[in-house]
Amino acid sequence: MEKKLVAIALGGNMILQKGQPKTYEQQMENLRVATEVIVKIIEMGYGVILTHGNGPQVGNILVQQTSAVTDGIPAQPLNICGAMSQGQIGFMIQTAMEELLYEAGMKDKRVVAIITRVLVDSSDSAFKEPTKPIGPFYTEEEAIELQKKSKDTYIDDAGRGFRKVVPSPIPLKILEGKTIRRCVEEGDIVIAVGGGGIPVARKNGQFEDVEAVIDKDRATEVLATQIDAEILMIITDVPNAYVNFGKPDQKAIGKITIEEMKTILDGGQFAKGSMKPKVGSAIRFIENGGTLSIITSPENAIEALKEKAGTLLVK
Amino acid sequence: MEKKLVAIALGGNMILQKGQPKTYEQQMENLRVATEVIVKIIEMGYGVILTHGNGPQVGNILVQQTSAVTDGIPAQPLNICGAMSQGQIGFMIQTAMEELLYEAGMKDKRVVAIITRVLVDSSDSAFKEPTKPIGPFYTEEEAIELQKKSKDTYIDDAGRGFRKVVPSPIPLKILEGKTIRRCVEEGDIVIAVGGGGIPVARKNGQFEDVEAVIDKDRATEVLATQIDAEILMIITDVPNAYVNFGKPDQKAIGKITIEEMKTILDGGQFAKGSMKPKVGSAIRFIENGGTLSIITSPENAIEALKEKAGTLLVK
Repeated sequence: MEKKLVAIALGGNMILQKGQPKTYEQQMENLRVATEVIVKIIEMGYGVILTHGNGPQVGNILVQQTSAVTDGIPAQPLNICGAMSQGQIGFMIQTAMEELLYEAGMKDKRVVAIITRVLVDSSDSAFKEPTKPIGPFYTEEEAIELQKKSKDTYIDDAGRGFRKVVPSPIPLKILEGKTIRRCVEEGDIVIAVGGGGIPVARKNGQFEDVEAVIDKDRATEVLATQIDAEILMIITDVPNAYVNFGKPDQKAIGKITIEEMKTILDGGQFAKGSMKPKVGSAIRFIENGGTLSIITSPENAIEALKEKAGTLLVK
Repeated sequence: MEKKLVAIALGGNMILQKGQPKTYEQQMENLRVATEVIVKIIEMGYGVILTHGNGPQVGNILVQQTSAVTDGIPAQPLNICGAMSQGQIGFMIQTAMEELLYEAGMKDKRVVAIITRVLVDSSDSAFKEPTKPIGPFYTEEEAIELQKKSKDTYIDDAGRGFRKVVPSPIPLKILEGKTIRRCVEEGDIVIAVGGGGIPVARKNGQFEDVEAVIDKDRATEVLATQIDAEILMIITDVPNAYVNFGKPDQKAIGKITIEEMKTILDGGQFAKGSMKPKVGSAIRFIENGGTLSIITSPENAIEALKEKAGTLLVK
């Protein structure tokens, strides 16, 4: 492949922000803004695979599943809700991006959305300790009742109410990796691994149903390695990873080797469930043969690709 | 491409039948049965593109949209619900089929689901006369109230209650056609055009939102022509199309030229909204360069490919 391949992970909050109306129109408006930088990256000549979060969307779908039970429609399991959100968000992104590509003179560029499954190990230790809150909020009393009736675990989600938690196992392989690679090689912009992908476990050729959520950045890292992408770009709401984040002596991390970054990581500098897993993925991608890992904001993405902004991890 | 390419349209009732529990488990059970014949066709050496209906699934999603409004989650429009159903059904089909492929010794065959958009003309005359019932059932009083508050049309759906109707425009082009063709050439089994595809209209590079449902068989026909498939196979619940269907002198139609079939069609032999559009698609596919159109049941699909069963249209 002549042009460089970049796997870009777009945060779910770029599609729907807290407090915004949860309408189709609002999400399309957000996506037109969010994908502008992706189109610029395509104009620069990169082959692009775009992955995305699905938190707000799958959250809404889960509530809708619960709400319609009284209408005689049983709730579909989490893996199906994840698949639904991939269809929903994939369609919205391709619509928004193809309009921008047209305006940029790339009328024939096709953005394709591929339903993506991610292989996990059903004996992953994460299954013993569910940590990822999903779906509707409940009162403590409701949560205790629900917990009694099922094998599910409910926790207090940051004081906002009680929610079910599911495991977050390690992604081993993207089942659609070969197809994704081929599509990008042929010039398609590919949307994949939505919401971290649909987790599946396999045993003797049979699939086992898995109720879990895979970290989107980590799944993107696995995809990027699997398809030999040169660059992994994690787009988030801050321009850099920081040392002493939020303190008076906060310092942005620029270009850095993975060995140096590991030292900072081991020093406990990064927030669990936020910057820490992003840094972890960025390091592993380089360890596994990648050329450059970028952590930055949409505003700084172009300059980061020119190695003039963002946190840049290299060997 | 060495091996022959067949585009197979699977009826939505193969995934969920009337009266069955609407659960994930039931749908997976049905799909394991429904896709057995597809796996046999793959074993025979055909390249396969599988399209499918989404009636029961998108119907449930539409009810769920309505049910959760009171929880503060706005209903997503029909195109988004269609995209969700493509994700849902695509994931279920690929899971069911890959298990069967594994059992048949084809461990490395990949089944990929591609979100598919279908171009329609927003000035299609269908938009003036909506005919396709969708979503929840209402009483006449409720329907009158809903009709007053919107531009929507509601009709009495076969005495079962009142439902909203949407247009069913002609599919012009499958936007993901090239990608689908490429994936099949490289050996993937492709699931596409779910529910007839997500209808989109385009004007000066901008997409217009379209609330419509495209006939699945017709969209499959357009895809089959676009990607130069040799065979179009429409799988339905009867083994053949018939002359004098349901009458004492009912006669199954076997191998027939499109000219002969047109005479039967023009004689008003086929039921509107059922066999008539299937026959129309079967004829157009041959007119546009296809080699063979098949209309048959899953039980007869293999013999039909050997030209020993089913209704077979040729030039």
